[in-house]
Amino acid sequence: MRSTEQLLVDRARLMGPNVSTFYDDPLHLVRGEGVWLWDADGRKYLDCYNNVPHVGHCNPRVVEAICRQASTLNTHTRYLHEGILSYIERLTATTDASLDTAILTCTGSEANDIALRMAEAVTGKRGIIATDATYHGNTALVSQLGKSNIPTVGFGLGQFFRFVDAPDSYRHPDPDGTTFAAHVAQQIDGLEKDGTGFAALVVCPYFLNEGFPDLPDGWLKPVAEVVRRTGGLLICDEVQSGFGRTGTHMWAHEKMGVVPDVMVLGKPMANGHPVGGVVANHDIVAAFRTGYRYFNTFGGNPVSCAAAMAVLEEIDDKGLVANAQTVGAYARERMQKLATQHEVIGDIRGSGLIFGAEMVTDRTTKAPASDFTDRVINALRHRGVILSKLGRHKNTLKIRPPMPFSKDNADLLFDTLDEVLADTSLHP
Amino acid sequence: MRSTEQLLVDRARLMGPNVSTFYDDPLHLVRGEGVWLWDADGRKYLDCYNNVPHVGHCNPRVVEAICRQASTLNTHTRYLHEGILSYIERLTATTDASLDTAILTCTGSEANDIALRMAEAVTGKRGIIATDATYHGNTALVSQLGKSNIPTVGFGLGQFFRFVDAPDSYRHPDPDGTTFAAHVAQQIDGLEKDGTGFAALVVCPYFLNEGFPDLPDGWLKPVAEVVRRTGGLLICDEVQSGFGRTGTHMWAHEKMGVVPDVMVLGKPMANGHPVGGVVANHDIVAAFRTGYRYFNTFGGNPVSCAAAMAVLEEIDDKGLVANAQTVGAYARERMQKLATQHEVIGDIRGSGLIFGAEMVTDRTTKAPASDFTDRVINALRHRGVILSKLGRHKNTLKIRPPMPFSKDNADLLFDTLDEVLADTSLHP
Repeated sequence: MRSTEQLLVDRARLMGPNVSTFYDDPLHLVRGEGVWLWDADGRKYLDCYNNVPHVGHCNPRVVEAICRQASTLNTHTRYLHEGILSYIERLTATTDASLDTAILTCTGSEANDIALRMAEAVTGKRGIIATDATYHGNTALVSQLGKSNIPTVGFGLGQFFRFVDAPDSYRHPDPDGTTFAAHVAQQIDGLEKDGTGFAALVVCPYFLNEGFPDLPDGWLKPVAEVVRRTGGLLICDEVQSGFGRTGTHMWAHEKMGVVPDVMVLGKPMANGHPVGGVVANHDIVAAFRTGYRYFNTFGGNPVSCAAAMAVLEEIDDKGLVANAQTVGAYARERMQKLATQHEVIGDIRGSGLIFGAEMVTDRTTKAPASDFTDRVINALRHRGVILSKLGRHKNTLKIRPPMPFSKDNADLLFDTLDEVLADTSLHP
Repeated sequence: MRSTEQLLVDRARLMGPNVSTFYDDPLHLVRGEGVWLWDADGRKYLDCYNNVPHVGHCNPRVVEAICRQASTLNTHTRYLHEGILSYIERLTATTDASLDTAILTCTGSEANDIALRMAEAVTGKRGIIATDATYHGNTALVSQLGKSNIPTVGFGLGQFFRFVDAPDSYRHPDPDGTTFAAHVAQQIDGLEKDGTGFAALVVCPYFLNEGFPDLPDGWLKPVAEVVRRTGGLLICDEVQSGFGRTGTHMWAHEKMGVVPDVMVLGKPMANGHPVGGVVANHDIVAAFRTGYRYFNTFGGNPVSCAAAMAVLEEIDDKGLVANAQTVGAYARERMQKLATQHEVIGDIRGSGLIFGAEMVTDRTTKAPASDFTDRVINALRHRGVILSKLGRHKNTLKIRPPMPFSKDNADLLFDTLDEVLADTSLHP
């Protein structure tokens, strides 16, 4: 087995420069089960970060579904198969009746790439608005949505994209969402005036990449009203926020009080098997598909659908949405207690199994403790707890574990975090 | 189980309009093994069409690799893992030394989307040239390469694409490739003059979608020379032509006498598990990745790499490239014999396990027998043999079976084809 050093050398040689790893001392993982991961030295880690293995690493139901179908038939949608139909029926049974039709893809990137073209097809316009602190995928078109990492190349597509300030409940409260709506309205106005025209607003309805600001239920209503009034589409990218992650609803857009025109799915959809999808009203799908026989060779294949179906079944059978709510509430309590002991915790946020704390050097000025947050994450990693950071200042702990995360797991996480925060050698 | 009629109704309802199926009477498949498929009524079909299950439907080695890794660990490349490195090492050991670095994706579309941006990154220009009878994928950018099915929407990206006549050895012979090279040179000239600039030529090196014209080895040399002289990149999309399909080489670009700047992989790479990739020189990968931390959540995950590795192992262990050559040569002999009996066969082409015949109503005028070809394919389907048609006139039988296809399988195919061609009720 290659050493960590050798792995890093070989990655640079075989995969090229600028390939991200997590942590100062990158992890070499070899095994996973539920909320646990093991490295090459046999060391065990509590996974508080990975949302792709939504129903747990190597979930037996999902593995069994993949093995069964992979050994029975794997082909494409130009032949008829029940798997894709049963899956779309079950998926759309969880959504508003207007979201009744789906296109299955292999990644959230492919799904967002379709969603943006749906907006162009419906509106005849090309202007897309997103927040300035998010990410929606990696195609030439979709990568333009990630303002902090826009490719240096991209066939000039940047001309169609506009950004608004990401919501920030801690530093710039906007409790009823009207400021956000006004900022979007301003960008729409600009797009209409400069001739680009407004096609769509794309948001993660719980703003996970933006640091999951503390927004009251129904917060997206004002901006949705602006989007509809001006003839654009509301695209909700539920790649991170969906499938019950927030604990209160299956889809975060329900929590935020809106029904999107297009819902985009990805990462957790099949627990790591490459599956993504777009759900929309039949008319919107028809607008996209008219004059274009979109076909995705792997998209909606029987194995992918079996894996995705097993995820929905597991969420239901194990009551994972309710678990997210219960454990999430417990985690917030434990974080509140930690905040009474550690001045560095400036703000606590989250819902269900997406939660975290913003680290500050001073609670009054709210100055971000970004470097400190980095040290905390690395210290946690060395104590066997895996998580990350995010937000505009990269000073928010990002805790987003597999959905079977328990109160015991939360206790281990917060006991360890308590130790790390008490280690004065790390302090800002 | 839903009836075929119900499946079609449910597809239109759940998947939207304009979703392709094969055959007048679409197939409802439920099981696959090797070169065989079974429908819902238990009827067995010889698969002479599907290249995605490259090493055979439900290949035991691939299924075992997927099950083993899916039950051990499935995560992303921000952690270290040997799987992706071992795979890229083995893959690049099959290519020219200059093709030494890879980015793994989930689909050929994602891979082509990267390849085009690599060309923009290296050249600083955006003009892309392809043939007028091909397809390279489905993203907003890549779908512009498929002239016969360009989406009605696409953020104006069509402005960067130019097309040249696909090679056609039957109707417009160009035995040394200089006419093709001259057509490409003309388009390059136009791109440079109109200010777009020339970035890349994208071709399937064996021109599968174009009807795999009968071109001598080394045929791409003149056009490659033009591309290099004018500072563009040669992108070889080996999604269909690679992994030994042509029988003579692992990669069709070797057969055609060139080394591409970027090689694109997809469909057969992991036997249907969603895997694609781009292989290029380290400098080209660096040009793309500089200033852009491209990351693909599912791309290069341990399960995908295990599946892809099993495909390479199976190709080697079973001698599938040599098998493609032997069985392909035998198939051509059998087709030649059929041509002496059936006037409708106008031209016979192919190499290895991509082969077929062009159907004409008149051997002198070479008038395409397109409707007849359609009837032949449907008749074969009803006799238990699955294949399709392609080419500009949709009159070329497209025979592209899984690589373990045997002489016995070829006998069954041609015996059945002989019967169908003898059925005068189908004739033009």
